[in-house]
Amino acid sequence: MHRYLRSGGTWFRLVHISRRRYCLNAGWLIQKRSRRMDSIRKGWFSELSELWPGQCFSLEVKEVLYKDKSKYQDILIFESKNNGTVLALDGIIQCTQKDEFSYQEMITFLPLCAHPNPENVLIVGGGDGGVAREVEKHPLVKRCVQVEIDDRVVESSKKFLPFMAKGFNSSKLSLHIGDGFEYMKQHISEFDVIITDSSDPIGPAVNLFTESYYKLLKQALRSNGIVSSQMGTVWTDLPQIKQTMNNCRKHFPNVRYATSSVPSYPDGQIGYLVASLDASLDLTKPSFKFTEEQITEHNLRYYNDEIHSASYVLPNFVKKELY
Amino acid sequence: MHRYLRSGGTWFRLVHISRRRYCLNAGWLIQKRSRRMDSIRKGWFSELSELWPGQCFSLEVKEVLYKDKSKYQDILIFESKNNGTVLALDGIIQCTQKDEFSYQEMITFLPLCAHPNPENVLIVGGGDGGVAREVEKHPLVKRCVQVEIDDRVVESSKKFLPFMAKGFNSSKLSLHIGDGFEYMKQHISEFDVIITDSSDPIGPAVNLFTESYYKLLKQALRSNGIVSSQMGTVWTDLPQIKQTMNNCRKHFPNVRYATSSVPSYPDGQIGYLVASLDASLDLTKPSFKFTEEQITEHNLRYYNDEIHSASYVLPNFVKKELY
Repeated sequence: MHRYLRSGGTWFRLVHISRRRYCLNAGWLIQKRSRRMDSIRKGWFSELSELWPGQCFSLEVKEVLYKDKSKYQDILIFESKNNGTVLALDGIIQCTQKDEFSYQEMITFLPLCAHPNPENVLIVGGGDGGVAREVEKHPLVKRCVQVEIDDRVVESSKKFLPFMAKGFNSSKLSLHIGDGFEYMKQHISEFDVIITDSSDPIGPAVNLFTESYYKLLKQALRSNGIVSSQMGTVWTDLPQIKQTMNNCRKHFPNVRYATSSVPSYPDGQIGYLVASLDASLDLTKPSFKFTEEQITEHNLRYYNDEIHSASYVLPNFVKKELY
Repeated sequence: MHRYLRSGGTWFRLVHISRRRYCLNAGWLIQKRSRRMDSIRKGWFSELSELWPGQCFSLEVKEVLYKDKSKYQDILIFESKNNGTVLALDGIIQCTQKDEFSYQEMITFLPLCAHPNPENVLIVGGGDGGVAREVEKHPLVKRCVQVEIDDRVVESSKKFLPFMAKGFNSSKLSLHIGDGFEYMKQHISEFDVIITDSSDPIGPAVNLFTESYYKLLKQALRSNGIVSSQMGTVWTDLPQIKQTMNNCRKHFPNVRYATSSVPSYPDGQIGYLVASLDASLDLTKPSFKFTEEQITEHNLRYYNDEIHSASYVLPNFVKKELY
């Protein structure tokens, strides 16, 4: 299924992005005559999209390591000059070796550490393995299921992004290649925590942020379950964040927005929707705290229990819209 | 005074940036044959610098409003497609209308609200008027002196950036065009708070971050004074931040780093060094708190007392380096 968007008299095809969003094909915007995947020009990879109009972030390319076109998306992995290895899907940066830890740790530990006993975890998406790598570190997790639709992302990550894909080696993990929607429909009241490491509320991906998606998440959760999903940037996506939180509130009594710094994402900031079925649970207070020894042992570079709470503290212009 | 830096067999002149830093002339890097100030290409302004190698942030230009070359720097003001009016000095973004409030409010209220009685305030730099605009809002401030070296930045800001330059209308403010170093040498033990809204610890500007600069600040402060300065991004400038904090520690017993989100600055994040002469003062706890009514009245879009404390909570990789 394709969607199209008109801009400046030209129609652009919206393409699917597994983590970040459906978006305009960046290559088309930069070099209309180039092949779809070619968003590299004069040694620089540029991330242009009508989702963040009027601004563009670029990374200097040292070497292209992998280019492929799967059933779902264009996959590009390159070695950058200063951000380590970079994964881009349909022209949008999914992660860079330099800063991916902020995203992976926060989307994982905000829900896991708020839950009193997160034994069973489901990851929807997350084909690079980064979230699985973090889930493995939590001592109370006994079992983690991951459902990712695109096996090519998994395979190329194993080859070129071993620092993240090592998450797939977890003895706690079972990986299913398939549709997260279908999986959840068949697994009712099974999980303590569900992490949706997937697309943004744009175009066709809007399905992942509707009331019905949150209903599905609720059904797959145990009674005191918690969910997290990436939830855009306050500087560009605030109306969508607000709408999604309101959709979530129809099924979850307790819905919050947290934030972290990720320089290679648009605006250098990304947020997380975290919601619990237990109305009285204070999501901002972790019930499990990593010790300093565990932080060192597990190489937690961003997350700690103080940043857990601080990440829920928001600027006035955001608070006013969301609460 | 000029400094030069060699890169790829070519020498680039380092040019002065009033707020952000001394840097390579971005225009030269992008289009070597173009005039120095011309960093606009095909309708996009690109901010390339060897200070953040391998990455570049670009803004689409709607209309160039003002171009000038003062005694100190190239001044460019343009209307952007999506960030409002933008001020760039020597090719580096100083502020955009969309997000400048985060920087101005945080560099101002982190020191002002931590001080029990900030009657006398000095601003060094800040030629766009944004910091002066915020200082005016604090009820306990009686008098504010601002020393800015470049009158052309002040004049062009008054004309094209009225949303910031309205700070110059404050009845509490007296503006001096001149050298902040010299001014401070002649005003000993006079100020409760000094805000350095100036360059980064790079090239010639390194003077502003040395032990001797902090000695000068200390002399110009009253006994329980507080200082703040912008202090780079944790993702790119961490070694310099650490070094400057150590320089500051030679004269101030209490030195902290706080952070905020500013998408148009490199990495979308900027930090603030805040230091007090009172060793026992907890800088993370504001002694003055704006009420909800004052927040609305003064249009505080970022700062509140919770974010004051939260801004000092840092990721593990930063904490480990700085404390």
